[in-house]
Amino acid sequence: MSTGRAEAFSDGVFAIAITLLVLDISVAPADYGHLRHALLHEWPAYLAYVTSFLTVGSVWMAHHTLFSRLRFIDPTLLRLNLVLLMGAAFLPFPTRVLAQALHHGDTAERTAVVFYGAVALAIEVVLRASERYAAARPTLLATTEPASSAGPAQPATGWRRWASTLLYAVAILFAVFLFPKLAVIGYLAVGIRSVFVVGSEGRLSLDFGWLVPRRWRNHL
Amino acid sequence: MSTGRAEAFSDGVFAIAITLLVLDISVAPADYGHLRHALLHEWPAYLAYVTSFLTVGSVWMAHHTLFSRLRFIDPTLLRLNLVLLMGAAFLPFPTRVLAQALHHGDTAERTAVVFYGAVALAIEVVLRASERYAAARPTLLATTEPASSAGPAQPATGWRRWASTLLYAVAILFAVFLFPKLAVIGYLAVGIRSVFVVGSEGRLSLDFGWLVPRRWRNHL
Amino acid sequence: MSTGRAEAFSDGVFAIAITLLVLDISVAPADYGHLRHALLHEWPAYLAYVTSFLTVGSVWMAHHTLFSRLRFIDPTLLRLNLVLLMGAAFLPFPTRVLAQALHHGDTAERTAVVFYGAVALAIEVVLRASERYAAARPTLLATTEPASSAGPAQPATGWRRWASTLLYAVAILFAVFLFPKLAVIGYLAVGIRSVFVVGSEGRLSLDFGWLVPRRWRNHL
Amino acid sequence: MSTGRAEAFSDGVFAIAITLLVLDISVAPADYGHLRHALLHEWPAYLAYVTSFLTVGSVWMAHHTLFSRLRFIDPTLLRLNLVLLMGAAFLPFPTRVLAQALHHGDTAERTAVVFYGAVALAIEVVLRASERYAAARPTLLATTEPASSAGPAQPATGWRRWASTLLYAVAILFAVFLFPKLAVIGYLAVGIRSVFVVGSEGRLSLDFGWLVPRRWRNHL
Repeated sequence: MSTGRAEAFSDGVFAIAITLLVLDISVAPADYGHLRHALLHEWPAYLAYVTSFLTVGSVWMAHHTLFSRLRFIDPTLLRLNLVLLMGAAFLPFPTRVLAQALHHGDTAERTAVVFYGAVALAIEVVLRASERYAAARPTLLATTEPASSAGPAQPATGWRRWASTLLYAVAILFAVFLFPKLAVIGYLAVGIRSVFVVGSEGRLSLDFGWLVPRRWRNHL
Repeated sequence: MSTGRAEAFSDGVFAIAITLLVLDISVAPADYGHLRHALLHEWPAYLAYVTSFLTVGSVWMAHHTLFSRLRFIDPTLLRLNLVLLMGAAFLPFPTRVLAQALHHGDTAERTAVVFYGAVALAIEVVLRASERYAAARPTLLATTEPASSAGPAQPATGWRRWASTLLYAVAILFAVFLFPKLAVIGYLAVGIRSVFVVGSEGRLSLDFGWLVPRRWRNHL
Repeated sequence: MSTGRAEAFSDGVFAIAITLLVLDISVAPADYGHLRHALLHEWPAYLAYVTSFLTVGSVWMAHHTLFSRLRFIDPTLLRLNLVLLMGAAFLPFPTRVLAQALHHGDTAERTAVVFYGAVALAIEVVLRASERYAAARPTLLATTEPASSAGPAQPATGWRRWASTLLYAVAILFAVFLFPKLAVIGYLAVGIRSVFVVGSEGRLSLDFGWLVPRRWRNHL
Repeated sequence: MSTGRAEAFSDGVFAIAITLLVLDISVAPADYGHLRHALLHEWPAYLAYVTSFLTVGSVWMAHHTLFSRLRFIDPTLLRLNLVLLMGAAFLPFPTRVLAQALHHGDTAERTAVVFYGAVALAIEVVLRASERYAAARPTLLATTEPASSAGPAQPATGWRRWASTLLYAVAILFAVFLFPKLAVIGYLAVGIRSVFVVGSEGRLSLDFGWLVPRRWRNHL
């Protein structure tokens, strides 16, 4: 089977999961009397929003990279894909729990952080398993590499492939035994790394030179 | 008419219906004091989520299989497709009712399970009717089979085609006269069967050998 | 500009608007003690769901028909399309109001029915204006008709083009001066007509002969 | 990498963000006794809906214009795109806050208007940065202009490119020091301008002549 519809369906699920995250940010009607304070008080919701947005975004980018190298999709890969989507579509729930729990005591926080990490870890494992499955099936791969295959189209190799998995596992252990709040920063860092660093040969790929108007650039 | 936009629209509806399911899983603010217990207490919501995800996922796979064999779509098929989408987009409601009812007494449980089964059965019947309609119209079918048509692209034939319909009917009767909770397991089993077994000639198609690193595989 | 992305974006908006409708159907936690009664009591929500599903579905089909005849899209049509989507994406709100109002007194009912009708009428007018605009621009139209252009691809002509507009207007007047509940049936009838009858030369296009197994058909 | 899937994913996110806006318009159950009044009382929600719909719509149109000129997408642009989507998907939250705050006192209003403006400004800046980045990379651009590239496909040049950014900044200052309600009208005006005026060489592009039936037109 060709990959067109599996891509379209996956794009839809990722796009919806990523957009539903905003529904969980809200200000109670009673707090409109001191709205500025209430908006600042919602920082855990913003932190959870950005973390999950980058997590789903990085899964989408890895999915994009994987499928751009495929010519066909076989039933097993289609099923692995469905399991991956089941995980990604579930992420808004731990995100909501995490945002709420950061307002409560230490116990709730720890549980929520571990729950979030476990779901993110499961998504990561299914994603890497799909990549490994596809890589072992030459008949599924495109014979010629797609034109201009740079950056994210270059999948990580060796131990780098499992870096996110490892980082999630470390962050979960950190949350259980040490500081849950720092583990959230860890999840955010994994998301930032996966979106902005991977595929750039380890360097942060954003080069802000082009933001400076050309006439000024000559004077720098 | 060509099938492109009907596929895109259907993919959108399936993707949204499958992703909205997560909105119905929640933890009440009062339960954050004992969050671990509250998360475990939500098991009916997880069960309903997985069941409906696999149900919609299997409908999407059957839809994919059907449309990959079509070259054109005629008005009647377009309308059947709209009725199918109306059913699939409705499924989040019985899913929510089911998840809630499993926390309540036996009567609510029975009603919710039968309601869920009736909706799933109706979707299944419209799906099979669409397949039958298309199969009887050679002008709609692609003259040449799509390349690499393996697995789910091979539609079930004979009595197998109606297996899910039959299983849903049996599960509903089971819920009415015997144990509603077991009928839910039945719905889950139909979903697992449709996604992971059908199109694999009756064998579970996941072969986990590729999960083992190659260097270890040689030693097994 | 080519029409591809405008179609994809429109498909997305229609698909989401049509799928969000289900979020407004719910059973209050207190009603799980008598769930069967509570589910039946929700009939206005089901009626509103089916009516709006068919309304959005028929707009999607008309949109599909219109765009299948276009080769290019110009800025004005792109903007008309955005206004059309603004109307279609707004429909879940009057749908929700309508479903709720049918549980309340006569005054609420009348207001809700007129509100719903006004939104449906506005969508219909923008849709017909878009069709008229496109028909007057030969440079936008495909020179050759798409292959196998039957059924819904054949746009209504003459007064038929404005039939839905007229029917909505009549139903609204009916709601204001006579029985609001019957006007809802009128909206449902417009939806059924637009989806199942238009493009079938006035005949109901569903022919159920193919539902009967072939071996039985010979004996009939 | 080719731009297909990035477009599809972006279309999905824009379509969902634009359609979720309607979920925040609601009438409290207690207000169904005087529904007409309650519906009119919801004017801030309608104003916020139309403003955000046009804002996201204009971002989609600019995105469409940008991508129609691209042949390839590189990792940096893909990441800028993800940041843009993060902003667009976040907009429903300030929209909801704005609609609620217009019912409350002056302080809440001011905070909400500035918050909304800041998010809209941030989206605008990322969008313009993406355009600037792409314009400076000739290898990413399509060698031949797309056929029939009129209207929105013609990106604004020089100071016009930054007009929306400037207008948002002015409206925010206006909200801080003068009348917040007027700043909302300013946001609406930016949206109307971006959707209906830009790309029409400064003239309002809607020419309503085609709405008049042909037989009457000759007599005018």
